[in-house]
Amino acid sequence: MKNYLENYRNKKIMITGGLGFLGSNLAHSLVKVPCEIILIDAMLPLYGGNYFNIEEIKEKLKIEIADIRDKDKMNELVKGQDYIFNIAGQVSHLDSMSDPFLDLDINARGNLVLLEACRKYNSKAKIIYAGTRGQYGKLEYVPVDEKHKMEPTDIYGVNKMAAEHYHLIYNRIYGIRSASLRINNTYGPRHQMKHGKYGILNWFIRIALENGTIKIFGDGNQLRDYNYVDDVVKAMLLTGSNEKSAGNVYNLGSGKQIKFIELVEEIIKTAGNGKIEKVPWPKERADIEIGDYAADFSKIKKELNWEPKVSLDEGLKKTIEFYKRNKEHYW
Amino acid sequence: MKNYLENYRNKKIMITGGLGFLGSNLAHSLVKVPCEIILIDAMLPLYGGNYFNIEEIKEKLKIEIADIRDKDKMNELVKGQDYIFNIAGQVSHLDSMSDPFLDLDINARGNLVLLEACRKYNSKAKIIYAGTRGQYGKLEYVPVDEKHKMEPTDIYGVNKMAAEHYHLIYNRIYGIRSASLRINNTYGPRHQMKHGKYGILNWFIRIALENGTIKIFGDGNQLRDYNYVDDVVKAMLLTGSNEKSAGNVYNLGSGKQIKFIELVEEIIKTAGNGKIEKVPWPKERADIEIGDYAADFSKIKKELNWEPKVSLDEGLKKTIEFYKRNKEHYW
Repeated sequence: MKNYLENYRNKKIMITGGLGFLGSNLAHSLVKVPCEIILIDAMLPLYGGNYFNIEEIKEKLKIEIADIRDKDKMNELVKGQDYIFNIAGQVSHLDSMSDPFLDLDINARGNLVLLEACRKYNSKAKIIYAGTRGQYGKLEYVPVDEKHKMEPTDIYGVNKMAAEHYHLIYNRIYGIRSASLRINNTYGPRHQMKHGKYGILNWFIRIALENGTIKIFGDGNQLRDYNYVDDVVKAMLLTGSNEKSAGNVYNLGSGKQIKFIELVEEIIKTAGNGKIEKVPWPKERADIEIGDYAADFSKIKKELNWEPKVSLDEGLKKTIEFYKRNKEHYW
Repeated sequence: MKNYLENYRNKKIMITGGLGFLGSNLAHSLVKVPCEIILIDAMLPLYGGNYFNIEEIKEKLKIEIADIRDKDKMNELVKGQDYIFNIAGQVSHLDSMSDPFLDLDINARGNLVLLEACRKYNSKAKIIYAGTRGQYGKLEYVPVDEKHKMEPTDIYGVNKMAAEHYHLIYNRIYGIRSASLRINNTYGPRHQMKHGKYGILNWFIRIALENGTIKIFGDGNQLRDYNYVDDVVKAMLLTGSNEKSAGNVYNLGSGKQIKFIELVEEIIKTAGNGKIEKVPWPKERADIEIGDYAADFSKIKKELNWEPKVSLDEGLKKTIEFYKRNKEHYW
């Protein structure tokens, strides 16, 4: 477990979206070796940023409240960084439809700001971009591999895909080493729990813990693929530390597809609380629903030696335990 | 020839980029039937807009100088339109690399402004989007069909691709009938002739007419596929008038691939002037070069009954004739 962290010893590391779910969990791993971490976060209301996420490790890192869309700030901040974990983003599928300009501004232009900053002021940085399974859209075959065509069903997916392409183009043309992870649905501690617009599994955990009713759209038979956040963090760290990853994209996955309804039953069982109700699909959800999803992660397994270690059972237990203990900081 | 034009009789038609190359040639076809045409153009310096392009038909249409990025203007202009030919754009591959933000702003955000305007004020319009072969990037197989993966080599290609996806998403989710043509290299009358940043074939025609030296990068053996502008205009009109096209993308092509060097020899022969010099690839061109390109256009042939009619020989003659006659308006 320690080897891949050794690459980060004494290095300068920047994490955009650093106070959010993935960013803060990544920081929790990185502080295990001495290194210089700066978390960049715009702390936009209703997004995932939460100071409590880094409460226990705040002495070991710096925080800068800044937006990746801010050219002047990014031009300064990228200077001297060895690694940039580029995670900041608008992450709601539904919000990308109701405000496509905001999604474009953050998820496309914001990433371009970061890349241009690197081109001008630090082309030596290695960038790890948080892409998404949402780039694929409806699948032509399952499990999906990286060669699958991308036809996103919503504006979020289009702009995330565009930004992934920007990273790959800057890698190829300017030699700014960049790699993208097409991240699966991810759950675990330090996710925002105030609404269900993204991170639906975490949202369901909240409902279950409050002994509420979890609404399932349709029959709930669509297949889903979930990763526990620690596994995703490890994938990001392996991608950052392995030179082979530059210019590449990698799927993450669990290898254990599960029906959506069974997942919810598992949450209720583990939480020891909550009920299920099946309701018809609301139009705005049905419009962007992608159907069955399962990822083939053999590429990252082979090239970077990553595979998920945390079972759904174990991950749910850890997650529920975390939120029971820290409820007041997330509810 | 007249049938597909009949669909536009007495209709309201808006053309973005209407004073440019494709837009103005399209207008020249449309005025053959009585219809209400409005050309929208931002007349950005160095872009393709040219009042002379519509000099002979200016009594038959309206012109509005407006930018597709202007929300208020677009919200007003789309009202009541039956057809929107959405052609406006930044079209230089090289400029998209030197100023990626401008390219993003026009080619991604601008198209989103237009689509949002339609969603709010005119969801009945049929939109025909001018996509590009540049969306594919380097080809995995030749000729390329519409199922080929899109991995653009430059920012221009990424943003044009993103905008195509926006159109398809607005078609699927909001029922705004949209179709995209992945337009090939196109040449012919009414193209800007002031620089060679886009429309290289037209630029070479100018050099030949001035008895200058046409510089070929490398050996010039890469395959290219060219369409004469009248064929492209016909494809746009067929796409607009056929309901089957909604939600679809179509390649255009000539069916006659030609080596770049042979094309230049043909220009010199037809112009009766000009010389060739082979020079090494400049880095910024080599970076975004896509290699051989040839398009499979069997989908549009089958579904919309389109095929190119104008041979390279004939097209070059017409083009050279046009510029000889109208030099002062383009040089």
